[in-house]
Amino acid sequence: MSSKAAVPFSRDALEQVLKRRFFFAPAFEIYGGVSGLYDYGPPGCGFQANIVDTWRKHFILEEDMLEVDTTMLTPYEVLKTSGHVDKFTDWMCKDLKTGEIFRADHLVEEVLEARLKGDKAARGQQVEEKDDKKRKKKVKEIKNVKLEDAVVAEYESVLNQIDGFSGPELGDLITKYDITNPATGGKLEPPVEFNLMFDTAIGPSGQLKGYLRPETAQGQFLNFAKLLEFNNEKMPFASAAIGKSFRNEISPRAGLLRVREFLMAEIEHFVDPEDKSHPRFAEVKDLKLKFLPKDVQEAGSNTLVEKSIGEAVSTGMVDNETLGYFIARIYQFLIKIGVDPNRCRFRQHLSNEMAHYASDCWDAELETSYGWVECVGCADRSAYDLSVHSARTNEKLVVRKPLDQPRTVNNFEVDIDKKKFGPKFRKDAGAVTKFLTDRTQCELEDLAKELADTGKISADVPNVGQVEVPAELVKIERVERTEHVREFTPNVIEPSFGLGRIIYSIFEHSFWARPEDKDRSVLSLPPLVAPTKVLVVPLSSHADLTPLVGKITSALRKAQVPFKVDDSSASIGKRYARNDELGTPFGITIDFDTVKDGSVTLRERDSTKQVRGSLDDIVKAVKAITYDGVSWTEGTSLLTPFETVTEEK
Amino acid sequence: MSSKAAVPFSRDALEQVLKRRFFFAPAFEIYGGVSGLYDYGPPGCGFQANIVDTWRKHFILEEDMLEVDTTMLTPYEVLKTSGHVDKFTDWMCKDLKTGEIFRADHLVEEVLEARLKGDKAARGQQVEEKDDKKRKKKVKEIKNVKLEDAVVAEYESVLNQIDGFSGPELGDLITKYDITNPATGGKLEPPVEFNLMFDTAIGPSGQLKGYLRPETAQGQFLNFAKLLEFNNEKMPFASAAIGKSFRNEISPRAGLLRVREFLMAEIEHFVDPEDKSHPRFAEVKDLKLKFLPKDVQEAGSNTLVEKSIGEAVSTGMVDNETLGYFIARIYQFLIKIGVDPNRCRFRQHLSNEMAHYASDCWDAELETSYGWVECVGCADRSAYDLSVHSARTNEKLVVRKPLDQPRTVNNFEVDIDKKKFGPKFRKDAGAVTKFLTDRTQCELEDLAKELADTGKISADVPNVGQVEVPAELVKIERVERTEHVREFTPNVIEPSFGLGRIIYSIFEHSFWARPEDKDRSVLSLPPLVAPTKVLVVPLSSHADLTPLVGKITSALRKAQVPFKVDDSSASIGKRYARNDELGTPFGITIDFDTVKDGSVTLRERDSTKQVRGSLDDIVKAVKAITYDGVSWTEGTSLLTPFETVTEEK
Repeated sequence: MSSKAAVPFSRDALEQVLKRRFFFAPAFEIYGGVSGLYDYGPPGCGFQANIVDTWRKHFILEEDMLEVDTTMLTPYEVLKTSGHVDKFTDWMCKDLKTGEIFRADHLVEEVLEARLKGDKAARGQQVEEKDDKKRKKKVKEIKNVKLEDAVVAEYESVLNQIDGFSGPELGDLITKYDITNPATGGKLEPPVEFNLMFDTAIGPSGQLKGYLRPETAQGQFLNFAKLLEFNNEKMPFASAAIGKSFRNEISPRAGLLRVREFLMAEIEHFVDPEDKSHPRFAEVKDLKLKFLPKDVQEAGSNTLVEKSIGEAVSTGMVDNETLGYFIARIYQFLIKIGVDPNRCRFRQHLSNEMAHYASDCWDAELETSYGWVECVGCADRSAYDLSVHSARTNEKLVVRKPLDQPRTVNNFEVDIDKKKFGPKFRKDAGAVTKFLTDRTQCELEDLAKELADTGKISADVPNVGQVEVPAELVKIERVERTEHVREFTPNVIEPSFGLGRIIYSIFEHSFWARPEDKDRSVLSLPPLVAPTKVLVVPLSSHADLTPLVGKITSALRKAQVPFKVDDSSASIGKRYARNDELGTPFGITIDFDTVKDGSVTLRERDSTKQVRGSLDDIVKAVKAITYDGVSWTEGTSLLTPFETVTEEK
Repeated sequence: MSSKAAVPFSRDALEQVLKRRFFFAPAFEIYGGVSGLYDYGPPGCGFQANIVDTWRKHFILEEDMLEVDTTMLTPYEVLKTSGHVDKFTDWMCKDLKTGEIFRADHLVEEVLEARLKGDKAARGQQVEEKDDKKRKKKVKEIKNVKLEDAVVAEYESVLNQIDGFSGPELGDLITKYDITNPATGGKLEPPVEFNLMFDTAIGPSGQLKGYLRPETAQGQFLNFAKLLEFNNEKMPFASAAIGKSFRNEISPRAGLLRVREFLMAEIEHFVDPEDKSHPRFAEVKDLKLKFLPKDVQEAGSNTLVEKSIGEAVSTGMVDNETLGYFIARIYQFLIKIGVDPNRCRFRQHLSNEMAHYASDCWDAELETSYGWVECVGCADRSAYDLSVHSARTNEKLVVRKPLDQPRTVNNFEVDIDKKKFGPKFRKDAGAVTKFLTDRTQCELEDLAKELADTGKISADVPNVGQVEVPAELVKIERVERTEHVREFTPNVIEPSFGLGRIIYSIFEHSFWARPEDKDRSVLSLPPLVAPTKVLVVPLSSHADLTPLVGKITSALRKAQVPFKVDDSSASIGKRYARNDELGTPFGITIDFDTVKDGSVTLRERDSTKQVRGSLDDIVKAVKAITYDGVSWTEGTSLLTPFETVTEEK
């Protein structure tokens, strides 16, 4: 049996196969291409469609989620409120002479890494040849120069924290380490902020500014009230969306891993902040996963912690059951579609990389030749999104939940004497009223004290200015009330999938070459998601075989098994080799015995093992292995092993 | 049995149902909405997903098309070449005082129609009350004024040709008929052209201008060479794409029929221009369709011509077999997903509305309360797209087809004396050479004559200017050669589907109210595409029934039949009424007999008929009716009819 690891992985070889078989290609290639934009060809498109279909079944159908399809065009106000207008940015540096633009953090990273490699080489230590070539190509200015030990340590420390620097800090590093345009040595301008959203104008007036959405999440939040109603006011529930999002990367490289237009699948699970348990957590609690928690990272280590998700939640490493449940479900999904379990970890966000409102966040990272790549985020976004949209629009985005037992609350309440308020504040009466009624319990406590102490409230009211409210116009006192309903803003647990990154990682995890011939490569995609399930191969173009092709294809079509026919004049071996590269898991061969007794041969891609049987039994085996998760051995146990020495030539 | 036409169709009632059940809603509604942008809620999203799935099976799988997924972001150069930068425009007029902007043709149409209605009213003729209300609301300036007979005739003639006017012609009409802002009577600026593409800048420099694609077609054309290679150079073949496209409408109304972001499904079928026969045409040739050919329209009539597609092609009314084949397949698809066959016609484009390069074009139009709506275009685009992209990029986008018989051709050829050409033209030698070798056969014939007559060629060479090429530097003569391969640019037949328009039309075609209670409306979506297939309804919340719900849902999940459970306390009749509005075709009721013998009741949405049987038999019937196209009568023939007088209360 062939070992998949016998021939070392080669990214170049994989890229050639993906290009040759048109899994994907640079978009607009005949026009010279546009970096960060890719088209999927037929096998890539089929693979993607199968992954989307599996996602839908695994998450939406299994959990009865509410799928929505919301627009990509998004008006300015929505993304201003969500924080994207102000914070969805990267820092860029410009070389004024050549006009080239660099992403500041990537530039610092690239140059310091190149210097460290130059240092290694100068010390006579081994540098991987490929790494060295790449470095010399990208960063021309760097020669093999030995650095002082303290400098090496400093560079390494900077690189470990590279995701955490602000723009001005990156500017300081660029100055301090004299970082220039790596190709020309030219001087760079200090970093400036660049918003990563594509903007456009909606409508003919040019007055309504809009963006292409950077995520599908906002469209789901804005429909929260309608979704809750659709769900008969039942909580918790989740919405889900699958669709394209956009990110105007400063200088995208790294193929499918960093693109400007990409397919996302996002879930927004709305949950009671006081109860983040999950009814189905018991089903997954024993699943063992590899974690990289924040305390390990903060100690400068990247040693993985392996434990069950149940233990991770019970020890508080993962914040709550619902978050833990989704982490486990994400893992199950990734394995199902072809991710290598040994190259999948969950990394916790550090406090400084997490959004201020998030209470916990874990990324599913997949290991590739580019390093560990963030492919799925799973964050507890708290009540942030619903709260800001609600505050901006004055729409109530809350859940009203009947209490099992009525409860008594004792809160500060504001009682305004409207008759006196109008004449006193005139046109500002509304604003002053709103200011007072919008206060939190803590603020009301302070105001009540001020009122008691000074007989008035002094306040700086937005859009009005400094006002004084005398005690005879307002009372602020504790009032006891009985509540039958609890009103709350749900928290949101958000699993968010970048499908292109997952797809590329699976390509790497599935790719290997046959030890007997390293030019014969195989893409071992799981049958469930492989673009084509069966290749139908007539042994020759003999007239006796032709009618059998029609018989087999109609049986496959009826069984809804996607197939292709290759009746070209190439040898059987060559036709199979082509389809090994396409990831086609099964081959059905028609030969002259088929004419006699109707039997056909079934070949398995990875092992090249063959079995023989009637067409019905073979189709049954293919369906069971592809869709019911049955193994090859089990699925073909009733068929006859078949051997041929010439098959793979 | 209830008649679906007994209660007259009401668009208001339909809109209320679609809104109440969250089929779709204005996007960003809590921010006040943005016209022309809509979100699909769970049932709309499910309905759309099922239509896309059916489309994929009906076209892509059945015909072995090559599906691609190309980017929406498209650089300027591509759309400049395709003609969209210059020609994808509408004419708009601005009211300088209010800033309001009107689409010029719609404005003329609206105002003249309003005047004609005012005239009708003044003559004491009947004007539909709703029409009249709408007119008075939209066009405030119009009173009921009698017009001269000649004016009425003129207005009617203008309205019949409204799609054919140029911008300046619309400007003339606005002046001639004194058309003003309908709301204020304010004066309007003359019409100016407005490009309907959303533009943006790709990358951080702001230098690379891009657009959101107005159609998915261009991405397919640009990948032609890769697709042909993927198809092992076999012709004919088709590519297909499903994805969002964008159109910055000037002032979109009419709900889902005129939106700024929409889902398209497009096929580009590449065919030999010398052979547009289709191998499967015989399968559809007897299908009878309703046509509105151009000669009928040009004679001022809209009487439909009913004939088979075979006859339409053989008489030359439809240009060729491939175009005819797709027209038939489009019809079959539309009927399968719920279009009323009596409200579907194929209208041929008039010569002046068809793109100059198209050789024939037919729209599938569906009748709605807004009139006949173009929902699918089916055009023969000739070799236009591949030719212009090839000319612009210098990439060969051709097919090379081995000839059955070698053939002799006798063409003019250019023979340049390169040794003398260089010294004579120096830096321009390349441009002059290209100019000569790029000439057509006709042009070469003229040049050969000029050379023979004058001993030189005088030519205006692009980027060079006027040059003279003496006879000793170039020969242009007829040469006889034997060709073994024919090289040609394929023609393209393009079926192009606007899914949102189809979806809205099906809503209208499927909507009716029960005669016994006009507030009980039903959406008779075909089971195949209905968002949910089965509603599971326990008769009461009695503890004996609860475990049975789990049993039934797991049977349905195993059979992959999408279902919902409604265990709310509402009456059975109310729960069914809710799901009649959601288009759910079947209901399974659990009652106390289920506890005894495991039998359940199956209810059909349109007839409210019920049958009873074992769970297995009921699920089998649901699957057969939903996915295998079996009728209710046939599918339930072995089950026991079941009657209850209280069910629908």
